[in-house]
Amino acid sequence: MVYRVHPSERISHGVDRNRFLRLLSEHVGGDGLLFDPEDLRPYECDGLSAYRELPWIVALPKTIEQVQAVLRLCREHGVPVVARGAGTGLSGGALPVADAVLLSLAGFNGIMAIDRANRTARVQPGVRNLAISEAAARYGLYYAPDPSSQIACTIGGNVAENSGGVHCLKYGLTVHNVLQVRLVTLDGELLTLGGSGYDGPGYDLLALITGSEGLLGVIVEVTVKLLPIPPCTQVLLASFDSVEEAGRAVAAIIGAGLVPAGLEMMDNITIRAVEDFVHAGYPIDAAAIVLCEFDGIGEQVESDLLKAGDVFRTQGATGVRQSTSEAERKRFWAGRKAAFPAAGRISPDYYCMDGTIPRKRLPEVLRRISELSAHYGLVVGNVFHAGDGNLHPLILYDANKSGELERVEELGGKILEACVDAGGTITGEHGVGVEKINQMCVQFGAAELAQFHAVKRAFDPGGLLNPGKAVPTLHRCAEFGAMHVRGGQIAHPELERF
Amino acid sequence: MVYRVHPSERISHGVDRNRFLRLLSEHVGGDGLLFDPEDLRPYECDGLSAYRELPWIVALPKTIEQVQAVLRLCREHGVPVVARGAGTGLSGGALPVADAVLLSLAGFNGIMAIDRANRTARVQPGVRNLAISEAAARYGLYYAPDPSSQIACTIGGNVAENSGGVHCLKYGLTVHNVLQVRLVTLDGELLTLGGSGYDGPGYDLLALITGSEGLLGVIVEVTVKLLPIPPCTQVLLASFDSVEEAGRAVAAIIGAGLVPAGLEMMDNITIRAVEDFVHAGYPIDAAAIVLCEFDGIGEQVESDLLKAGDVFRTQGATGVRQSTSEAERKRFWAGRKAAFPAAGRISPDYYCMDGTIPRKRLPEVLRRISELSAHYGLVVGNVFHAGDGNLHPLILYDANKSGELERVEELGGKILEACVDAGGTITGEHGVGVEKINQMCVQFGAAELAQFHAVKRAFDPGGLLNPGKAVPTLHRCAEFGAMHVRGGQIAHPELERF
Repeated sequence: MVYRVHPSERISHGVDRNRFLRLLSEHVGGDGLLFDPEDLRPYECDGLSAYRELPWIVALPKTIEQVQAVLRLCREHGVPVVARGAGTGLSGGALPVADAVLLSLAGFNGIMAIDRANRTARVQPGVRNLAISEAAARYGLYYAPDPSSQIACTIGGNVAENSGGVHCLKYGLTVHNVLQVRLVTLDGELLTLGGSGYDGPGYDLLALITGSEGLLGVIVEVTVKLLPIPPCTQVLLASFDSVEEAGRAVAAIIGAGLVPAGLEMMDNITIRAVEDFVHAGYPIDAAAIVLCEFDGIGEQVESDLLKAGDVFRTQGATGVRQSTSEAERKRFWAGRKAAFPAAGRISPDYYCMDGTIPRKRLPEVLRRISELSAHYGLVVGNVFHAGDGNLHPLILYDANKSGELERVEELGGKILEACVDAGGTITGEHGVGVEKINQMCVQFGAAELAQFHAVKRAFDPGGLLNPGKAVPTLHRCAEFGAMHVRGGQIAHPELERF
Repeated sequence: MVYRVHPSERISHGVDRNRFLRLLSEHVGGDGLLFDPEDLRPYECDGLSAYRELPWIVALPKTIEQVQAVLRLCREHGVPVVARGAGTGLSGGALPVADAVLLSLAGFNGIMAIDRANRTARVQPGVRNLAISEAAARYGLYYAPDPSSQIACTIGGNVAENSGGVHCLKYGLTVHNVLQVRLVTLDGELLTLGGSGYDGPGYDLLALITGSEGLLGVIVEVTVKLLPIPPCTQVLLASFDSVEEAGRAVAAIIGAGLVPAGLEMMDNITIRAVEDFVHAGYPIDAAAIVLCEFDGIGEQVESDLLKAGDVFRTQGATGVRQSTSEAERKRFWAGRKAAFPAAGRISPDYYCMDGTIPRKRLPEVLRRISELSAHYGLVVGNVFHAGDGNLHPLILYDANKSGELERVEELGGKILEACVDAGGTITGEHGVGVEKINQMCVQFGAAELAQFHAVKRAFDPGGLLNPGKAVPTLHRCAEFGAMHVRGGQIAHPELERF
């Protein structure tokens, strides 16, 4: 399916492709440029594979100077640019844009330094998330944020999306674990943002860049914080007779002052799909299960497990099991990590949502999702970072049934709007990309969006970096019908062109 | 002393004060405006009392609508605005600017909600830092960041400066503990940035605002994260024969995988001053002491204390004492908290610096400070957040001796430059304000400064918010002689006016 670009987001340039390839080849070199349809095909989508678009040109630079040269040429000729890491993103952030250069950072895959005393790793953006922990393991250190795609996704993409993972409840998102980023602006300037210290002077452009989805610049180096590998880790598996009870138990765990390393929830649809696939040892009759992990020194973990077990039982758990071995602990988690592919086994297609709500509203939002699921006649599985209030409803469908994807998208939109209504947000960790760009009109008012566009112009006045992603134009919102319009007018006349 | 504004930073407006007071009084009301020199005097400086300037007008709004009205009027008439919390800042961020409105948020001092289930507090910006913890105590919760001024400083000022404190090694700076800010822009728009969830869509303007020193907008509401009060807290006091050894011991504690709640260091000059003042029980013959606190459950704390004691002894500590009672623990910390006033007792004046360096370079930087101290003939005491590598050298001097303050400032500048040379930054937690604005030219190159100015223009195109603070103009840097000039030219011709 081709993504429907809003007219206000379209960037037109009359540049001849062969001429531009010649200009690029002066800097990037022959093997660093792809233009044959066959070579472009692998780049036509990211993890949101419902949408596809063939890139105009793929550039694979190998040095910072080459990135600078590509961006300068694009700016000079008004050619849009989409940066891409491993392409595992789930919201279409790396989806190619028509007539745009796709800038792949895959070639930047070197670990430049691991500083044991300061517990940091300086790496190139194309290094895989898990590769950092693997390299740091010899020093007893690891990189904490662990998106489910950590085997494949790159740290540059993690920074661009502000990725989370199972352990971000305790250890924070990417933004809490990144110390410095080197960024090339569209002008070709190389900026060093952040530093080895804890705080720095000047505006916090490091945090601004983190999660900016490739709209402000291209990340060419990342320095991350490393943590000591905890000496002890144990997980509890609690079963419940209803998802509402499980939701209340999650809120009660946090309310009891416990800080689990991971606190995940799964409903019956997902439990059955997973159990059938990886035999994780889950109770297939439970309406919902909660996985609750603690790490630290043995005494702390033991004490936390006892307290958490009591909380679960008080909240009506029908069973509470503790992993009895490291093998069993890994099996419990293997089930969680296989939840998405397991859904793929029971349904031809599935659509993974990503909304965040205040924890205490988990029961009611789960109820609302179940009502919406019934209304649309589409099965929704729930598997998510319950401790963060970060939902991942999986809508099961069949793309070959005409009109079904459209219904899925409508249901998805309604689920996100229910999250916003509950005081939450339309994305927890997957980013907005193209997927949730309309819901941004529900999330934010005109004043906030106008300020976003003003910040964007401070980096990219021509709007060439990843156009049509993450931040909707006010015109898109007016059309979507959800703009908080004041007195019938879009605020900020100077933003009329957006 | 009047602060020397650079000509490129001066905002001139020809507005008549009485006329502007009349315009303001239509919105703020008579008792919310101060203009008599006597009433203005208390606002003439903040914690950096070396610099003073009488405000043009002080406005004390009580509602968000009043803040919006004041900012709209200022924008319309080209009048600069300086926002102020409690005025405890140490870098002159709230220093009045000539012909500018000083906007005091002191009247916004209500705690609006404490949400126990989500562990958050929603407060007005004029609420004192400690008042949040006091109000949350009934639920067993507290707000972690604890600047030394926490009795007096306000949460709005904390956000504006991204304040730290003794416990930020473990619990993070303000930016890690703030979930949402409501901000009024110079246009008078009310923006809601961040949210109750962990991450949100759109650019991370919440982080951008945090630490922006009043240059981007005026904070009118803050929602902070609360933490459970730890059940057990204990502190170790380790003594050393040299500051270098103490510095190495600090790096070794972190290197051993320990995460103290606080890790502070003090040299002999400070130890003696403190001991004479509050009788904290410090060993007055030690060249340096390190205070190392752990919190958590009893077993964890005991285990950490044992490990930390071993590390200190291995690193050459001449003595390691553990607080034997809560009273003794509080006494140990009372000494640390009284270090600044204690310096005030042994010297007519002192100047508190604030630089950050990578921990492993503590010994060499401390040596360099001692060399600089000898060279300038000025006594420097050291008391600081060693665990964060955040130095607070205290330069002792006598402001009545002609030319001494100038020598102090020169020495201070050299100390900050030594921090930057060591891979550090010119501020850890006190902000840049006017104090370190020249050193920003050392810290950043033209490309970074140009990007800062572009971001500033996205919020405040006329440069009316807190002009002359935090981010130097390129002209100032060219004059200061430290701009990283490329090919003899200031980069970015469009920034020539800066």
